[in-house]
Amino acid sequence: MSEQAIKYLSDNRDQLLDKLRDFLSIPSISTDRLHNEDVQKGADFVVSYLRDIGFDRVEQQDTGGHPLVYAEHLQAGPDAPTVLFYGHYDVQPVDPIDQWKSDPFEPEIRDGRLYARGSSDDKGQVFMHLAVFEAYMKTEGTLPLNVKVCIEGEEEIGSEHLYATLHDKKEQFQADFVVISDSGMVAPNQPTILYGLKGFTGIEINVSGPDHDLHSGLYGGAVRNPAMALSHILASMKNDDEVVTVDGFYDDVEPLSDHERELIDQIQGEDYLKSTGATETASEKGYTVKEHTMARPTFEINGIFGGYQGEGTKTIIPSQAGAKITCRLVPGQDPEHIQSLLEKHIHHAAPSGVTVDVKKEKLSAKAYKVDTDHPLIQKAAKSYTEAFGKETVYMRMGGSIPVVKWMESIYNIPIVLLGFGTPDDRLHSPNESFPLGSFDKGMETLARYWAEVNQR
Amino acid sequence: MSEQAIKYLSDNRDQLLDKLRDFLSIPSISTDRLHNEDVQKGADFVVSYLRDIGFDRVEQQDTGGHPLVYAEHLQAGPDAPTVLFYGHYDVQPVDPIDQWKSDPFEPEIRDGRLYARGSSDDKGQVFMHLAVFEAYMKTEGTLPLNVKVCIEGEEEIGSEHLYATLHDKKEQFQADFVVISDSGMVAPNQPTILYGLKGFTGIEINVSGPDHDLHSGLYGGAVRNPAMALSHILASMKNDDEVVTVDGFYDDVEPLSDHERELIDQIQGEDYLKSTGATETASEKGYTVKEHTMARPTFEINGIFGGYQGEGTKTIIPSQAGAKITCRLVPGQDPEHIQSLLEKHIHHAAPSGVTVDVKKEKLSAKAYKVDTDHPLIQKAAKSYTEAFGKETVYMRMGGSIPVVKWMESIYNIPIVLLGFGTPDDRLHSPNESFPLGSFDKGMETLARYWAEVNQR
Repeated sequence: MSEQAIKYLSDNRDQLLDKLRDFLSIPSISTDRLHNEDVQKGADFVVSYLRDIGFDRVEQQDTGGHPLVYAEHLQAGPDAPTVLFYGHYDVQPVDPIDQWKSDPFEPEIRDGRLYARGSSDDKGQVFMHLAVFEAYMKTEGTLPLNVKVCIEGEEEIGSEHLYATLHDKKEQFQADFVVISDSGMVAPNQPTILYGLKGFTGIEINVSGPDHDLHSGLYGGAVRNPAMALSHILASMKNDDEVVTVDGFYDDVEPLSDHERELIDQIQGEDYLKSTGATETASEKGYTVKEHTMARPTFEINGIFGGYQGEGTKTIIPSQAGAKITCRLVPGQDPEHIQSLLEKHIHHAAPSGVTVDVKKEKLSAKAYKVDTDHPLIQKAAKSYTEAFGKETVYMRMGGSIPVVKWMESIYNIPIVLLGFGTPDDRLHSPNESFPLGSFDKGMETLARYWAEVNQR
Repeated sequence: MSEQAIKYLSDNRDQLLDKLRDFLSIPSISTDRLHNEDVQKGADFVVSYLRDIGFDRVEQQDTGGHPLVYAEHLQAGPDAPTVLFYGHYDVQPVDPIDQWKSDPFEPEIRDGRLYARGSSDDKGQVFMHLAVFEAYMKTEGTLPLNVKVCIEGEEEIGSEHLYATLHDKKEQFQADFVVISDSGMVAPNQPTILYGLKGFTGIEINVSGPDHDLHSGLYGGAVRNPAMALSHILASMKNDDEVVTVDGFYDDVEPLSDHERELIDQIQGEDYLKSTGATETASEKGYTVKEHTMARPTFEINGIFGGYQGEGTKTIIPSQAGAKITCRLVPGQDPEHIQSLLEKHIHHAAPSGVTVDVKKEKLSAKAYKVDTDHPLIQKAAKSYTEAFGKETVYMRMGGSIPVVKWMESIYNIPIVLLGFGTPDDRLHSPNESFPLGSFDKGMETLARYWAEVNQR
């Protein structure tokens, strides 16, 4: 049943790519208020696309923040399964802008890759779903299964209003399973199904000392330096073996089984030196880099700041210094409990003479894991393998998608993470891109999957 | 011999104050190119004053920047000592201007203080010297000793061209001792002689890891985090006892003698909690705050930076992190050697997987100390005590005045730091002022000192 749709996608590739360019040209940066209108334009684009295809009940839902686009097409009949497709149309900021080789919002193809902010995360992948729906509607006049669509505009700012919407409109969004394409393959052209995601939590530390910046000559030796106090606190939280030294941090971690270590070992890991540019890798003592990134908790400083950062020298003792920290969690770990452990450790580690404030990130999520033997997972793997001509591998991932855990907890249904990005996509960084090969074969995978799901 | 001069100063106080007002009305802000003409006017004022008094060889020297005023009066005979008086006629900017209660360049007397930019730093104190020279010339027809004058216009911008001038015109500027009045008393009406200043050196650390910011979910557990590596490096450099833990840092430090500890103990220190707003003080283990600030080396982080510093969360592993550090040094420590020790320590402390670059600050200075028993210091103290009616105290200070070290290194002569400012003068801040009591008694001190110096 998918052949015609696949042919449509191939025949109309140029027009689809042009339309994708239009989508990517909208600077829908959700973190930046100056771009609020652009975020709205992103939602408008999705809404008109869905209306043009022929979806019913296409709505922009007022979440209190950026709008969420809901649509449905439920004409496959009561016996056909219903999928809820989730994605997001908002994108990350583009700083540092001078490191982009082409304008982040003027999509450009170079060496088989489409360069633009959002090309991989997640506009490009959302667009692939819309294009596959279009292909079915134009060739079959309908979709092979019942479809509900939920495309939000706040993923990059922590999906602030999504949980409430999913919770409050449970009946409207209810489906048999969820499909999300906001992730990637372990290597280019290597079909990959994510069966586990890490959880997430964060804190911000602010260390205050003197109530104004002090002259380092007159007051050096009189008071604590907040930047040095901060360094001591941070250094006490993770050691050179990459082991988190916060009491209790690993207590609830579900141990890695031998079977999982084998699965992880079988995955062709990416070339971390190439993709990161680091001089060598560094992982938790006792675990490989693949094991640590995919299946062990992490602790990372995302930002550190305090005092004079300009050119040359300013001889001050800064009044304040701070750091932003996020942890990726594995099954067993509770985000709020981890925040409390971090907070306790920080207050304990802080020297006298400074005041330390710990702000807990409100948006946290537990880790997620699904059984790889589930029929919906197996069918996705089959379609993926057929489209790419290569056996699908199963992978756990270091990233967190809070919506996954929320959907699981609210709807209690399987969640299929079918992502087509590659390790070279530079998500969240300058020069984000997406390989056109993934664009083509990924759409074929989806076209096959929708047909496969309704085969009983 | 000084009585008549002192009487002259008293009899002509109003005219002198008027003339000082004229000097202070010139906005000779050296940092601001828009004020270049005003800086020139400042130099012109000094030149005409010196000519009017009867100095010989009054010159404006072209330094390549703002002019330096040189003058000499060498008629006390070959057996009389020669003093080189150093000061500066340039002033700090006045921002934030709205915080001034009266115009910074329309001098106003309120509650026994003269308010104006430069009233204390350093035009007011330069003027006192000129007035005392005038008093001698008008009453005795000559000066009690040979005098060379060096008044520059670039002190507030780091005395950029001064070293070269002092070095190149060594013979012209050569004297038996130097007097500088660009500092203050430890408390109002408390005669204070600075006998030590700290040296200065600095470095900047830059830690590089991945060649771009990484997604903390995908790469957490794969590479070193440069901000964490930086924290480990910094935390290894000074401990919670405020002891610098860099190997060799204290090796060359001239120990604090019991006599000096007594001198320091006798000084009425400032209320550090009040002036800094810190919750408690913190000084090197084994030393009081006064001892540490005045006479022990310090190590301060002036700024720390890396990764995301904006609102909310950005889940990255930053590509880079860095810190700016300056140290204040005491006699015995060599700035370049200290830089090398810091560099060596940093490279040793850096974990694998990151690249660490250490940039050495070019402007360094050794510490300065003069023997308080030196006859020139003792005579200054005697004059100071007689004029103020209170015993002189001796103080070392945590700040650095590069010109002091330069003069010592070029001329190898004693430097007498005879300052009349007070802790309430608000140097570099809005509402700078100078107490008229210091003006009167300070001039008397100088008048007495010049006579005293030539008593053998």
